[in-house]
Amino acid sequence: MKLSDIKTPEDLKRFPREEIPALAHEIREKITQVVSENGGHLAGNLGVVELSIALHRVFNSPEDKIIFDVGHQCYTHKLLTGRQYNFDTLRQYNGISGFPKRSESPHDAYETGHASTALSAALGFARARDLQNEDYHVVAVVGDGALTGGMCYEALNDAGNNKTRLIVVLNDNQMSIERNVGALNNYLSHLRTSKPYLMAKKGVSHMLKIIPFVGNFLFKSVQSIKNHLRNLFVKESYFTSLGFKYLGPIDGHDEALLEDLLERAKQFEEPVILHIVTTKGAGYAPAEVAPERMHGTPPFSLVDGKCKNSSTSKSYSKALGDELTKLAENNPKIVGISAAMVESTGLEILRQAHPDKVFDVGIAEEHAAVLAAGMASGGLRPVLAVYDTFMQRALDQIIMDIALQKLPVVMALDRSGIGGEDGPTHHGVFGTALFRSIPNLLLLSPRSTKELKQMLTFSFEQEKPVIIRYAKAEGHRQCELPEPSFSLGVWENIKQGKDICIIAYGHIVDEALDASEILLNEGIHAGVINASSIKPLDTSLLKKLSLKNIPYIVAEEVQLSGGLGSAIAEYAMQEGLNPPIKTIALPDEFIPHGDRKALLKQFGLDAKSIADCILSLADEFTKDHA
Amino acid sequence: MKLSDIKTPEDLKRFPREEIPALAHEIREKITQVVSENGGHLAGNLGVVELSIALHRVFNSPEDKIIFDVGHQCYTHKLLTGRQYNFDTLRQYNGISGFPKRSESPHDAYETGHASTALSAALGFARARDLQNEDYHVVAVVGDGALTGGMCYEALNDAGNNKTRLIVVLNDNQMSIERNVGALNNYLSHLRTSKPYLMAKKGVSHMLKIIPFVGNFLFKSVQSIKNHLRNLFVKESYFTSLGFKYLGPIDGHDEALLEDLLERAKQFEEPVILHIVTTKGAGYAPAEVAPERMHGTPPFSLVDGKCKNSSTSKSYSKALGDELTKLAENNPKIVGISAAMVESTGLEILRQAHPDKVFDVGIAEEHAAVLAAGMASGGLRPVLAVYDTFMQRALDQIIMDIALQKLPVVMALDRSGIGGEDGPTHHGVFGTALFRSIPNLLLLSPRSTKELKQMLTFSFEQEKPVIIRYAKAEGHRQCELPEPSFSLGVWENIKQGKDICIIAYGHIVDEALDASEILLNEGIHAGVINASSIKPLDTSLLKKLSLKNIPYIVAEEVQLSGGLGSAIAEYAMQEGLNPPIKTIALPDEFIPHGDRKALLKQFGLDAKSIADCILSLADEFTKDHA
Repeated sequence: MKLSDIKTPEDLKRFPREEIPALAHEIREKITQVVSENGGHLAGNLGVVELSIALHRVFNSPEDKIIFDVGHQCYTHKLLTGRQYNFDTLRQYNGISGFPKRSESPHDAYETGHASTALSAALGFARARDLQNEDYHVVAVVGDGALTGGMCYEALNDAGNNKTRLIVVLNDNQMSIERNVGALNNYLSHLRTSKPYLMAKKGVSHMLKIIPFVGNFLFKSVQSIKNHLRNLFVKESYFTSLGFKYLGPIDGHDEALLEDLLERAKQFEEPVILHIVTTKGAGYAPAEVAPERMHGTPPFSLVDGKCKNSSTSKSYSKALGDELTKLAENNPKIVGISAAMVESTGLEILRQAHPDKVFDVGIAEEHAAVLAAGMASGGLRPVLAVYDTFMQRALDQIIMDIALQKLPVVMALDRSGIGGEDGPTHHGVFGTALFRSIPNLLLLSPRSTKELKQMLTFSFEQEKPVIIRYAKAEGHRQCELPEPSFSLGVWENIKQGKDICIIAYGHIVDEALDASEILLNEGIHAGVINASSIKPLDTSLLKKLSLKNIPYIVAEEVQLSGGLGSAIAEYAMQEGLNPPIKTIALPDEFIPHGDRKALLKQFGLDAKSIADCILSLADEFTKDHA
Repeated sequence: MKLSDIKTPEDLKRFPREEIPALAHEIREKITQVVSENGGHLAGNLGVVELSIALHRVFNSPEDKIIFDVGHQCYTHKLLTGRQYNFDTLRQYNGISGFPKRSESPHDAYETGHASTALSAALGFARARDLQNEDYHVVAVVGDGALTGGMCYEALNDAGNNKTRLIVVLNDNQMSIERNVGALNNYLSHLRTSKPYLMAKKGVSHMLKIIPFVGNFLFKSVQSIKNHLRNLFVKESYFTSLGFKYLGPIDGHDEALLEDLLERAKQFEEPVILHIVTTKGAGYAPAEVAPERMHGTPPFSLVDGKCKNSSTSKSYSKALGDELTKLAENNPKIVGISAAMVESTGLEILRQAHPDKVFDVGIAEEHAAVLAAGMASGGLRPVLAVYDTFMQRALDQIIMDIALQKLPVVMALDRSGIGGEDGPTHHGVFGTALFRSIPNLLLLSPRSTKELKQMLTFSFEQEKPVIIRYAKAEGHRQCELPEPSFSLGVWENIKQGKDICIIAYGHIVDEALDASEILLNEGIHAGVINASSIKPLDTSLLKKLSLKNIPYIVAEEVQLSGGLGSAIAEYAMQEGLNPPIKTIALPDEFIPHGDRKALLKQFGLDAKSIADCILSLADEFTKDHA
């Protein structure tokens, strides 16, 4: 039998056990091949091939609910639940998602993307089951990385207290996105290296495989199974003090052993945690060797795992790391904080130069924000480098700890705007709306890496918090533009144009410049303004535009609701000025996954669409302008 | 010596030890008397009198940093740090705050208000100290209630891993705001009832008091002290598995014992947790008996603790509880979730009727939101009842778990608008800006308890999430108004007026009605519209106003930035309609504490100010209207 014989998990259940290793091999090949072409999350998926097979052989999805924390490790699950035939479209525009998606399959019980939610969601399912007198299993698969997030603890504390029947598989691969941190990680490591685990790894699998044949006689009750297994497992205290039963640790690549333990976990009438140890990238040497780099990867060569086309545009992350390192030379107060993202935010460059000045707190954005507030209170100048979308986790702390106390924390929010293939949980499109209503705070967005560097220098001179939002890499026109000269509340007039002005920031500045060239062919002279300072606005420029009756539109890569266009309309209302004619921004819906360019086009934010929009408005503004 | 002799903590250090009990008694009297007049947090403050005294005798504030989690238990601290002479102004407009406030005193090292931040902030201070080669102690005082919040775990995980020198006092009073919940609470209870603790409670205090006299010889090193004390304390596993040293549990009302243990905690070069057991309300019988009711209390009679003036206006919390209980009769899918606020949000009424249908998850808003998402995925209709300001904690989960999956979760956000005496951390003034940019979600605000009930019925019919924001109690005019008839996206024309319209929602509807009467005396006919549906807007009404060229203003009790006025201006921009002439809302700053009426007046939202604003605009709108 082969992967192609598996149309549903029922087919998998009929798969001969001795052919499972070959199936796992075939799945690894399929995943590696597709990710090498489309890009995606590789290392984590290779680590859970056996686990995903075991889950679908032991449980009856979709009746039983399997919830993957973070969700980017669901590729095997997708292959086993009817999506192998369009798996080639993984993460592509209109293709299947790289995350669980309820609209794709009833087997995707719950959508995830941001870490540490699966335990809470699973507990919700379990309670819904119990209250409605239903009878199904709920399994949450959570990594040791996600376990650094406080929400997991909140869920354990709740589930353990109420003894709700629930199975948690702790997938311990000793990593979050990067090497894992935290005291609990040390503790898990202690469990992993304990003698019973090593013994289990060597001999128990075989023993358990033969247990079923004698099991009918010996292991009728859960209690007797537990008695028998007790000596196989290490004595645990963290999870048991929170009211969970604990099984493990066991080898997460021994599929037969996994099946047996999951069968046993099913029999508990209370919450149980099964601690399995896996290897990120297992089965594909380049990913095993460099799991950080192959956590989420662009397309790569199958032979050596090297990336196919490295982008030539300048990375904001690198600019952040370089500039912080430079600034830290003269300012010993500068420190960096990240939430499991030291490499990908560029803080690694600072860490190389000053290992004692970079703090990785794990996937714990809330703690990261308050830690920064505490450090600033203690006289340091912390930079919190986090992806834009993940910073939403710390919104309350930004308001109540950082802004209320007016603490000089610099928040460097990477991957702003439409992120692309990771989809709605990873686009950074709420930042303008969410952050601009917070008092005491400055909100900036650079058009280029050079402007980011200027903003950083500026930020460390402020006695208040600054948020800087930026995309992954510079736009395509920045190489030809003159150097920016950032000044707070003063927008940059990049290009003059007598007929209309386009106000844009970040990446969209480049689209606006392209649009102005398209418009020139139609005889329309469109100016382009770089609104690098979202809060405060350039009120003097807005007054000037009103006074001169120059029509203008705003184009921005965030939700329209609450964005810069909205902020300007709000200001114009209060001051009795002319508002923008129109704002081009994202509509009131979640933005799907796919190629960034295709998404910009879909939502009218590419140069051509901006130009078309202005042409369709031409009557209006020439009238106003007259 | 007396309390009046203590101008700084240095004076307290000179206080004879034998007079400390009398001082504690005097402090309790002072706190109880002032809170009986001003209202405030009583029970928690009475529980930490001895702890606060011990902290200021052992540590050197402000060099040493003492951070109170949540912060409303800082009254003794304020009395001991130079604020006894204006303590009578506690929580009053322009008086001293009921929370730590850095502008009040250098002894308030860090401002708190929302729970579970102190450990993270303290770790920030400790790291700032170490990096700058400073030498001071950092102490975080955290309750067992706050410990249900995941951020505490994130901080423990980080601090324990890096072995940063830090002292955590776990003030275990077996309560958060209400009876505490969660598995860790059971675990703490297990520690409390252990034999060593009981022994310590009886005899150790005396023994420790005499230790200093022999200590010079016997206890030179930390290690020897630890060896000697080891047997006095229970074997602990939760905190030690996270890398903390653990001392306790001890009696938190034995001031001498506290001093000795704190002195010992100072000597550790790594993070240490001191577990103390206190009684909420200690020393004042009515508060000891009913600590929930006297957690935060309005003014009360000193004799029996009964509230002086119970408000006659109708409480939204009670309306929520009543209506949910009624709806749950016919809809078995309805369940309630709260974050340590079952009583104060009104869910207690539902719990009385259906004890199995209300879930208190502790101070864990993030988990509460995802639990609700999981329950909704499992077929239930959960209501999440949380205070508006605390729901900020779960913003990311509202976006990424609830809204993205379009799950039918009803979020009932109590205490919206200006809260009053608790101040900036408790006002619910960001809700409109933060929630209205989230797709798939409805945002409502009732003007009366009856409208809240209509909205609830409506919400359970929707297949998408609904947020309902409301104040503590109805406004004063609702008794005389006709019954509302809520309809989504249709605003209610409460009062006709040919000259101008005031669009308001929630509490401000009453101020608008009063304003319209003031304006009538000036010959201006102002209409009043109840904009109960913030998202979606009543676009048909807005078009009609534009078409008829009727001028209108918006008045709302939230930040102007991103509020309803802003939403309307944004809509008008996109549609080419007339925006509001002006929005009266809160400015871009944090709103201080004080009497709600005084604050409304300060920010131009009382009837008189609204009327004055319209009069000042009269030229503008009569011109437009002509």
